[in-house]
Amino acid sequence: MNKDITKGSFPNSKKVYVQGKIHDIKVAMREIELSDTKDKEGNIYKNEPVTVYDTSGPFTDDNIEVNVKKGLPRLREEWIRARKDVEELSELSSDYGKMRHNDPSLDVLRFEHVNTKPLRAKEGKCVSQYYYAKQGIITPEMEYVAIRENQRIDEIKEKYAQHKGCPMGANIPATHITAEFVRDEIARGRAILPANINHPESEPMIIGRNFLVKINANIGNSPTTSTIDEEVEKAVWAFRWGADTIMDLSTGANIHETREWIIRNSPVPVGTVPLYQALEKVNGLVENLTWEIYKDTLIEQCEQGVDYFTIHAGLLWKHIPKTIHRTTGIVSRGGAIMAKWMLHKHEESFLYTHFEEICEILAKYDVGVSLGDGLRPGSLADANDKAQIGELEVLGELTQIARKHHVQTIIEGPGHVPMHMVKENMDLQLKYCDEAPFYTLGPLVSDIAPGYDHITSAIGGAMIAWYGTAMLCYVTQKEHLGLPDKNDVKEGVVTFKLAAHAADLAKGFPGAQYRDNAMSKARFEFRWKDQFALALDSEKAMRFHDETLPDEGYKSEHFCSMCGEHFCSMRASMEVRDLAEKVDEKKKEFAKFGNEVYK
Amino acid sequence: MNKDITKGSFPNSKKVYVQGKIHDIKVAMREIELSDTKDKEGNIYKNEPVTVYDTSGPFTDDNIEVNVKKGLPRLREEWIRARKDVEELSELSSDYGKMRHNDPSLDVLRFEHVNTKPLRAKEGKCVSQYYYAKQGIITPEMEYVAIRENQRIDEIKEKYAQHKGCPMGANIPATHITAEFVRDEIARGRAILPANINHPESEPMIIGRNFLVKINANIGNSPTTSTIDEEVEKAVWAFRWGADTIMDLSTGANIHETREWIIRNSPVPVGTVPLYQALEKVNGLVENLTWEIYKDTLIEQCEQGVDYFTIHAGLLWKHIPKTIHRTTGIVSRGGAIMAKWMLHKHEESFLYTHFEEICEILAKYDVGVSLGDGLRPGSLADANDKAQIGELEVLGELTQIARKHHVQTIIEGPGHVPMHMVKENMDLQLKYCDEAPFYTLGPLVSDIAPGYDHITSAIGGAMIAWYGTAMLCYVTQKEHLGLPDKNDVKEGVVTFKLAAHAADLAKGFPGAQYRDNAMSKARFEFRWKDQFALALDSEKAMRFHDETLPDEGYKSEHFCSMCGEHFCSMRASMEVRDLAEKVDEKKKEFAKFGNEVYK
Repeated sequence: MNKDITKGSFPNSKKVYVQGKIHDIKVAMREIELSDTKDKEGNIYKNEPVTVYDTSGPFTDDNIEVNVKKGLPRLREEWIRARKDVEELSELSSDYGKMRHNDPSLDVLRFEHVNTKPLRAKEGKCVSQYYYAKQGIITPEMEYVAIRENQRIDEIKEKYAQHKGCPMGANIPATHITAEFVRDEIARGRAILPANINHPESEPMIIGRNFLVKINANIGNSPTTSTIDEEVEKAVWAFRWGADTIMDLSTGANIHETREWIIRNSPVPVGTVPLYQALEKVNGLVENLTWEIYKDTLIEQCEQGVDYFTIHAGLLWKHIPKTIHRTTGIVSRGGAIMAKWMLHKHEESFLYTHFEEICEILAKYDVGVSLGDGLRPGSLADANDKAQIGELEVLGELTQIARKHHVQTIIEGPGHVPMHMVKENMDLQLKYCDEAPFYTLGPLVSDIAPGYDHITSAIGGAMIAWYGTAMLCYVTQKEHLGLPDKNDVKEGVVTFKLAAHAADLAKGFPGAQYRDNAMSKARFEFRWKDQFALALDSEKAMRFHDETLPDEGYKSEHFCSMCGEHFCSMRASMEVRDLAEKVDEKKKEFAKFGNEVYK
Repeated sequence: MNKDITKGSFPNSKKVYVQGKIHDIKVAMREIELSDTKDKEGNIYKNEPVTVYDTSGPFTDDNIEVNVKKGLPRLREEWIRARKDVEELSELSSDYGKMRHNDPSLDVLRFEHVNTKPLRAKEGKCVSQYYYAKQGIITPEMEYVAIRENQRIDEIKEKYAQHKGCPMGANIPATHITAEFVRDEIARGRAILPANINHPESEPMIIGRNFLVKINANIGNSPTTSTIDEEVEKAVWAFRWGADTIMDLSTGANIHETREWIIRNSPVPVGTVPLYQALEKVNGLVENLTWEIYKDTLIEQCEQGVDYFTIHAGLLWKHIPKTIHRTTGIVSRGGAIMAKWMLHKHEESFLYTHFEEICEILAKYDVGVSLGDGLRPGSLADANDKAQIGELEVLGELTQIARKHHVQTIIEGPGHVPMHMVKENMDLQLKYCDEAPFYTLGPLVSDIAPGYDHITSAIGGAMIAWYGTAMLCYVTQKEHLGLPDKNDVKEGVVTFKLAAHAADLAKGFPGAQYRDNAMSKARFEFRWKDQFALALDSEKAMRFHDETLPDEGYKSEHFCSMCGEHFCSMRASMEVRDLAEKVDEKKKEFAKFGNEVYK
């Protein structure tokens, strides 16, 4: 099992831990060491290390030996138990969970330290971060998030204030994120902190439009392909490259066991669409789906530690006629399943009619709800139509119900939307859903680029994130064509990381600009190894560079193969700087000249 | 030579020619044949073929035998001569051109049908499309462009008007492009039609913000790599995938001969930066550059048939001090060269002081000027700074001078710009440069994604094109790292094609939406081969699909490997449609039920 798991620190990087002030916590970050700047006189200037937000977990801490068979350290366990509002159950509560656990034929697949005594809120208690926030409590999770979002930017600004004439800190805004700010945003429902009490391995993170834009990567086996090993590696791979959450969308065999392995090894929150597993339980026959089966699935997954569920509760009977003449009908899997169910049963969606009960279950474990957009447009022709907007209004109603139950709530969004309709979508979501965080799939700004849909969706994604979307679900280049492999996952994650980062920059987020400044300075000074280390994908940057100039010596050269030595503008620009300095020395002449030539 | 040239029609496609009405011209387009739609009762519905804008030239017409040794058919030659305002020279006018032609050691490299009797405007005549437009003349080139931009959309709308209940034409705006509109936009200086009288092989195209957004691909050898063969193939490859113009940025040996091969085989306008070749002529020693050498280079290239020149005439002495404290100084090669020249010489830029003379030369051949942005920002930290905006103002002055000489003019733009500054950039350009078309390099919306800069720049590119940029210069994934290879060129071209197309959609451009509708309909109906044919990159779309489902039979299946058979939302959605129809048949019950469930 362990053999294929990707581990090890990033180039020139190490894991650092920042101590909390309110709580005794240590917040993990990645520190990138930079080489010095040397000027032509041989003077040396230190470049301060760059601290970046890091989703890769203990897998990239060379001081921690990760064993996927045992799972990750249980970082939050003490914090959860210290609140004294949870009880340890004597056994699993779901029938299905018990059945799987008691089936000896599954021993070979089973995670060996599987927890059969899950936690649940004590009777009468509420354990959601949202509830705590409304009570005015700053939890360790909230402080963790505040420190994490800041990326030590205050410390770095301070250091640079002592460097003379260094532009590095100049355009970096001051940070506004405090633990109290985090609490307040959660309390207002403008941000969520997904943190199932049965997933203590997760490192706290926050989803909200006043924080760094987050990205989600979908993984999961399909009916015919991939093994548990591959799925765990895909998960580790996804958060290594920057996935802030992962969704396990498995639809094949052994979903229950696969999920256990993934959660026990995931430092990022894990989301699912419980409907998929419920449908597997009735062998794909929609008409056999029942509320009871679905409910048991919710409980099963709550007790495994899933952090948020996509629930398509806003697609109602009344919306179905609006989809009939659409160009691409219903393209959400969950949406299509529920529409079929309603038509078979001639009944309103059980997700809607039982929504209060769903919330009661979720609140007991602090599982968030991600209200699914079953009617998202699958083509530009269907964007922002009555079906989509009609459902969005219902999601707004459901947001209020979930909040009443103290359930952390986010809203899912499209889909295929042309650029000029993106902002309208964002604005309507904020309005109808009372500023609950928006979580969009792209949107894709064109339909005609299969093979490049990570890009069509990164364009729409960057824009909508700038306008206010809190989390982007990645789209891979295999979208519309097939199941993504490991390379597709990486390309998708990095592409979305850059889209999210572009939005962070546009929003003037503290810390986002700093990394770009460090990269640009390294670029201008031809510190190639620093450029690779600062890149979102160091491995690819170095590989591309080395394709034409593989020798080690070229990594200190003042050009690359793109323009060659004589035509390198950066090199010429440095010469311009030197020349201008010389001219500057004879200042009077310069002034005289300057006056002459530009009159 | 001929062996490596990529030829042949696209999948399910053929070249069609639309007859002009004002002039006897035939406008080349690509027609994509689609298969029929079959419903479950076995009824068959015809899907009209889709006509798309096609930059690939005769190379994709299976009825034309292209021989790169002979060059392409001289489509525009008669039109040019019929105007009776040109004279055929008895020999080349440039000293360098003559020297290269008379050097027998170059015979082996030389294009065999090289033209040594170029055309030039007769004394006292002006031959630019801009001049004609201002005279109220609709040239064959202008009518060609009008027909080309429309992609037969009126014809298609008409055909679909006769289909019952078909949504294909519903959201397609009516066309507004007539030959007179083309003429008027050119006359106003809001669009250019690059058409050197010595490049009769080119198929007329237009660059302006009221037309389809265009893209440029840079090619060209670097000092140490690639042969003429490779460069010609790279050019053919670039316009095959959608490059509307190519720029030959060669800096190595045999630039003159390489360019001849490229132009004679290029159905798209060719741009260059003459400064690069001028610098090669003085062995890279900036201080040895002179106006005379530069001027001879301009004439040399005008007579070969280059359609537009990038000229960095706006970077002045007064701007240099503004670049000294930039994070990344001067990142334009032309800009850095000119700054060095000015500092060496203590003189104002000769490109600026001789600009009127430059325009006089260009006007004689109808070569357009692309006013280079020598001070474009090379990092987000430098975006929209005083250096950049200061130069832009000078480009505005130069625009007026060029227009006075009837030279078609476009303006080059950045560079590295965060999303929230993109619109400001566009607005300032329109203001300072009196609506001359903007031609931008990206912009890149982040600095930290080397290896993915085709994507960071496609994000900024799609946005700025929506805001009004007329042409996007592609950026490849090798940007900042090395010289692009053929695969990088293709990835870059297709990525920018999709960014441009996304902008066309957002601008509501006639014809843009139609292809997306056809794709979405094919997608919903599982017409896989039609999807591949309609894709911007058919080859990749098919390859990705076939990676997991290679058998021919899967190309008519109602699912793909992404979600598998049971979880295909499109498949489920079709079932929803069928179920809803059945419910619909018992309409009363439906109404009764509908009323019950949604109260």
